[in-house]
Formats: sequence, C-alpha cells, structure tokens
Amino acid sequence: MAGTDKTRPSLTGGPAIILIEPQLGENIGATARAMLNFGLTDLRMVRPRDGWPNPAAAATAAGAVAVLEGARVFSATEDAVAGLHHVLAVTARLRDSVKAVLTPREAGPLMRRWESAGEGVGLLFGPERAGLNNDDVALADTVLTIPANPAFSSLNLGQAVLLLAHAWYQSGSAPAPTRPVEDLGPPATKDQLVSLFEHLEAELDKAGFFLPAQRRKAMVRNLRNMVQRFGLSELDASALRGIIRALVGSKGQD
Amino acid sequence: MAGTDKTRPSLTGGPAIILIEPQLGENIGATARAMLNFGLTDLRMVRPRDGWPNPAAAATAAGAVAVLEGARVFSATEDAVAGLHHVLAVTARLRDSVKAVLTPREAGPLMRRWESAGEGVGLLFGPERAGLNNDDVALADTVLTIPANPAFSSLNLGQAVLLLAHAWYQSGSAPAPTRPVEDLGPPATKDQLVSLFEHLEAELDKAGFFLPAQRRKAMVRNLRNMVQRFGLSELDASALRGIIRALVGSKGQD
Repeated sequence: MAGTDKTRPSLTGGPAIILIEPQLGENIGATARAMLNFGLTDLRMVRPRDGWPNPAAAATAAGAVAVLEGARVFSATEDAVAGLHHVLAVTARLRDSVKAVLTPREAGPLMRRWESAGEGVGLLFGPERAGLNNDDVALADTVLTIPANPAFSSLNLGQAVLLLAHAWYQSGSAPAPTRPVEDLGPPATKDQLVSLFEHLEAELDKAGFFLPAQRRKAMVRNLRNMVQRFGLSELDASALRGIIRALVGSKGQD
Repeated sequence: MAGTDKTRPSLTGGPAIILIEPQLGENIGATARAMLNFGLTDLRMVRPRDGWPNPAAAATAAGAVAVLEGARVFSATEDAVAGLHHVLAVTARLRDSVKAVLTPREAGPLMRRWESAGEGVGLLFGPERAGLNNDDVALADTVLTIPANPAFSSLNLGQAVLLLAHAWYQSGSAPAPTRPVEDLGPPATKDQLVSLFEHLEAELDKAGFFLPAQRRKAMVRNLRNMVQRFGLSELDASALRGIIRALVGSKGQD
C-alpha cells in the first residue's frame, strides 16, 4: 500500500514507474535503487510473480528501501494507471502501433512539461522475458523505445528503468514550454479514458459491431489505439460520452 | 585474453570499459550486457577480486558472453590504460582535482570526436564500495561524474557503465527515432471530415442533442473543433462513421 508522504523520501516528483508482472525480486530492487538515484519514488506493480513484499528485492535495493515500502500493488494495469494523464509504454519492439514513438532523451523534457502542468505521468515496463503485451500498450498514449545495438537490444529491466529515470533527472533544468494559448483544459486521465472505452464498447457490443466474435479482441484494441491518439481532454471525453448516450438513447424515441 | 576480431560482435568501437578491482561477478556480467547493449566490446579488468574467469559473471551477462570471453585482465591500472590516449575517471565524488569534470552527456560527443581522430579512449570505474582511489584518478586526464539525487547518489557499477555506454551510443549517428511502423495512411481530406461532421450532426439532431436550439450553432462549432483536433486519418474517419452507424443502427434491433 502507498506510504504516507512522511515515509517517502523528500525528493519526490517525477513519473510513476509501473512494472507489469515483474518476475525477479532482484530486478524490482534494482528498479527501486535506480529510481531513487534519480529522485523517483512512485513505484507501482501489477501482479508481481512472486507476490509482495519480496525479500529478494531488498537485497538489490541497496538502501532504497523507502521506495519498496511505498510501492503499491495492483491486480490490473487499468487500476495502476488510473488517475494518470500520460502513460508511456517502454518497449524494444516497435509494433504496428500508431502511437508516437519517443526516445528517452525526447521523453525527458516532455515528462517535465507535463509535470509542471500538474499532469500525472507513468512509465509502463513489461515482464522480463516477454515485454509488454499489446493490451497493456493499448493503455498508453506514447511508445518509448531505447535505441540500442540492433544485434543485442534487450536491456535488463532495472537498466531500462535507470535510463528513463536518468533522462527525466537530466532534463530537469529545461525551461517549461508554454501551454497552447487556447487552454483545452487538462487531458483526460486514464480511468476516464477506460470508462469511455468501456461505455463505447458496451454499446457497440449491443449493436453487434464487433463481429465475427473472434475478431472482437483485435477490433477493441484498434479502437482504443485510435481514441488514444485523439489526445482527449477531460471535457472531450465527457463530450464523447454525451454523444454516445445521445446516439444510442435516440433508440427509444423512434 | 583478448578475443580475436572474429569472435567479437561486429558492432565494435567505442571506449574501453576498465573495472578496477571489481568485487561481484554479477556486476561484471551486468557490465558486459550493458556494454554490448550499446555496442561496446573492449572490457578490461584490474585485479578482479574473485579471479577470472568468474562463473557468476556469465549468469548476468545474459548472452553478452563474447564480451566476457574477450575481456583482458591486468595486474596494474597503468597496464590497463597503456596505449589509450584519453582516460576518463568515473566517480561520484568531486575531488580536489584540477581536471576537467564532465557529465555523460558532455562526454559522449567528446569520446566520438577522439575516436574519429583515431585516438583510444578508456573509462575507469572503481570497486563497488570504495570507488576509485586517488592514484587511479591520477592516471585519468578527465573526471566524469553522473549528476544524481544528492541524498542517494551511489549507482550500482553495472548501472554506471550502462549510462556511459548509452551516452556514447546516443551521441553517435544513432538512427533517428523511427516513426510508427504501420503508417497511419493519409490524413482525412476536409471533405471527408465535413461528411463525417454532417453525418454525426444529423444523427445528433434526430436524438435531440443540440438543445436549446439557439445554442445549436455554438455546439456544432465546438464539436467540429474537437474532432479537427483528433488529427483523423482517412481510415479513422471511415471507422468513426461505421461506429456512428452502429450506435444509431441498433435502434431498429431493440
């Protein structure tokens, strides 16, 4: 469970690090150490393989135990990203995704800019062997890839976290670019987006849109990826839900 | 002993990584992996604590065994740096030294410049606990420090190697971040957008969405502005029209 602010190190801030199904406690510990080296403290895990807490993590955390103690565990990625405004999926594989693809150096200043606008940022890391699955990537609005030796591009989990934490730390002195003149209001949080997805998908199910049934999963993923790209604000998400309600609600009035 | 060029990975080049009295085989393995991730292959060690080869190193090298097999062991730092033109001492402590102090980001391009002039470059890392001693630092012409959280600045050895290897790789002609593999296709033309608007607005009119009537004009404008911001492709526009049809089409099926 989340530690209180009092138990957390004072150098808070920066993106949440979200490990999906991490396998090795040693890597969780290395992640905590790498985070604290660069001032990050918000560690979240989804279904860690060996449960939590994990004694193997403390050994490699090397003093970053406060990060481990403050870590939060979730049973679903959707819950782990709820409340965040920007989620970046860290993956070595460039998928047939239609999201923006950034490097750590590009992501650093962007994360700072979001932060200074009061918007929550999270970085998603997949399990050691398999990496992120497509459903988890579909919850992200941006893909982050670490350019590396094409012949040996697989980074250790803790090492990947380190590079991103360092990129964030390093970009600290960058001046915050100004917001667009016409303020769109805050971007939708991920739980608002997921609610929108589920609302739309439920109505489309009723309408028999996702047919044949074996294609439903892929169609849902494509739909979510498309809507993620829209860059919806809170107001947009709410407007779209109103539109969906109006379109289906007119049924009874015919 | 040094491997032949044939046994080394093809992506050679870059600075030599020189570990002074490394203690843990795991860290030597992590170093080899981090090196190969970013195309470095020249690993040198001075008096590794547990001798060499070290089976614990292979476990964490995760496939970067060619780097371990090509590693060279020396009994003195002087021998390890012989033949190099530039030696950078990596240390968290900024000493009372009169050497230039660089960050990884600054050192990256400099190492590249030296290399392209045919000059050999090496990075010195001290033992896990103590770090470099002053005699070893004295063999360096430059001090390299990694800015980190002042309250928790001690990086794991393999992590420190990773950041430097990454800084070197990044400063090269690393290929620009790739665009999404699957092209989004051409953006929707304005007439396609207008068709989408009119389709949606007609359905929303039927649903009584634009009420009261005197607000219709402003509501339509807001809706169009929102959808313009989505940056729709042709395929997106067509998908959205399919969704609208499905949502309203379900009327008849109730």
